[in-house]
Amino acid sequence: MFDVIAFDADDTLWHNEPLYRGAQQQVLDILAHYHARDWIERRMYETEVRNLEHYGYGIKGFTLSMIETAIELTEGRISGAEVGRIIELTREMFKAPVELLDGVEETITTLAASHDLMLITKGDLFEQHAKIARSGLADHFSRVEIVPVKIRETYQSITAKHKINPERFLMIGNSIRSDILPVIEIGGRAIHIPYETTWEHEVVPEEELAGREFVRLAHIRELLTLIDQYRSR
Amino acid sequence: MFDVIAFDADDTLWHNEPLYRGAQQQVLDILAHYHARDWIERRMYETEVRNLEHYGYGIKGFTLSMIETAIELTEGRISGAEVGRIIELTREMFKAPVELLDGVEETITTLAASHDLMLITKGDLFEQHAKIARSGLADHFSRVEIVPVKIRETYQSITAKHKINPERFLMIGNSIRSDILPVIEIGGRAIHIPYETTWEHEVVPEEELAGREFVRLAHIRELLTLIDQYRSR
Repeated sequence: MFDVIAFDADDTLWHNEPLYRGAQQQVLDILAHYHARDWIERRMYETEVRNLEHYGYGIKGFTLSMIETAIELTEGRISGAEVGRIIELTREMFKAPVELLDGVEETITTLAASHDLMLITKGDLFEQHAKIARSGLADHFSRVEIVPVKIRETYQSITAKHKINPERFLMIGNSIRSDILPVIEIGGRAIHIPYETTWEHEVVPEEELAGREFVRLAHIRELLTLIDQYRSR
Repeated sequence: MFDVIAFDADDTLWHNEPLYRGAQQQVLDILAHYHARDWIERRMYETEVRNLEHYGYGIKGFTLSMIETAIELTEGRISGAEVGRIIELTREMFKAPVELLDGVEETITTLAASHDLMLITKGDLFEQHAKIARSGLADHFSRVEIVPVKIRETYQSITAKHKINPERFLMIGNSIRSDILPVIEIGGRAIHIPYETTWEHEVVPEEELAGREFVRLAHIRELLTLIDQYRSR
């Protein structure tokens, strides 16, 4: 049924978003005596999204966006020492262990025995390489693609490069915007496994999903059964 | 003679290092009232190299390292507004035009008509993609590899992946450490074209070059003649 089964990484195979939200909450603590938390949080999000165009995804861009917001909001009154604490906080993100989601290790190990698996993740090259290495899963994937964005053209170019027929390509991920919709657009199949939280920027309004055909699973443990069903059709 | 000719990008095809050094000089101006320039410059270099392990190469890591150094050196006395100016300066680096080195456009265009060309560059995925797109050269390269570091294993994995015989692989670049030595180690050929300045971290002591066989050209314009000589052997 499928020649290649591809997985997203962050929040599909291992926990990621809580690391960012945890760091952000601590930065909000540092800035709490300047402004209301909600307002700072909103401004941080705006800065982050505006900077995506230049910075792309990842910890470094996130850190720079937080520092930039902090300086703007305080009209430069934030102290060097406070900026130093922000850098210190986000530096810990680099050292954070890679924690696999429940069920991932067994599912990937089992699936790799019968299928050609690929990893497709967007983000910072350096950070993603380090996480893949630390995940212990690298050997199960025959190909790893780290891409700057996940849009229709990304999947078109990956399937073309590896000579994969999109109809025999399955993508699995937690982000409807990045892992599901663009894959359906090129004629591929997609399975959505929502994560406990979704970064606001990745959220797709329900009305945009009308007519889009994809399966949603509550847990990666359900994946093997579903793929078996596809095969026996 | 060669199945694939690969080029480095930064400071081989387009100017890059002066952008970093220019920004650094402006940051030194901002910090000049705290410490002696030479001393700050030395500390910045140390921070940058120490952080490479986490940040990798690129503008974002460079910016964070400069901010970190500034905070350390001033023991946190640097103002938020001054940090903001550092961010502003480095943000301009993202918008800087990609300026090709003299002779690059003609050489690459001519060579692409007769050879399979590849681009191998280390650095930030997002930044390198943007520069390649803006360079106007993308169509001349059949393959582009953006890698976190350029060591022996990098070239081994690239030649294996694309089924290239290392003996029929030629790499051209400005960095002896990243473009020349590891390629020679895997049995490939390399041509060194020094750039006007080399980042200290990329410099290789002359004694390490003993017995390493590679050609050094003063200018990329000399490349076509050299490759013709190889072919007619």
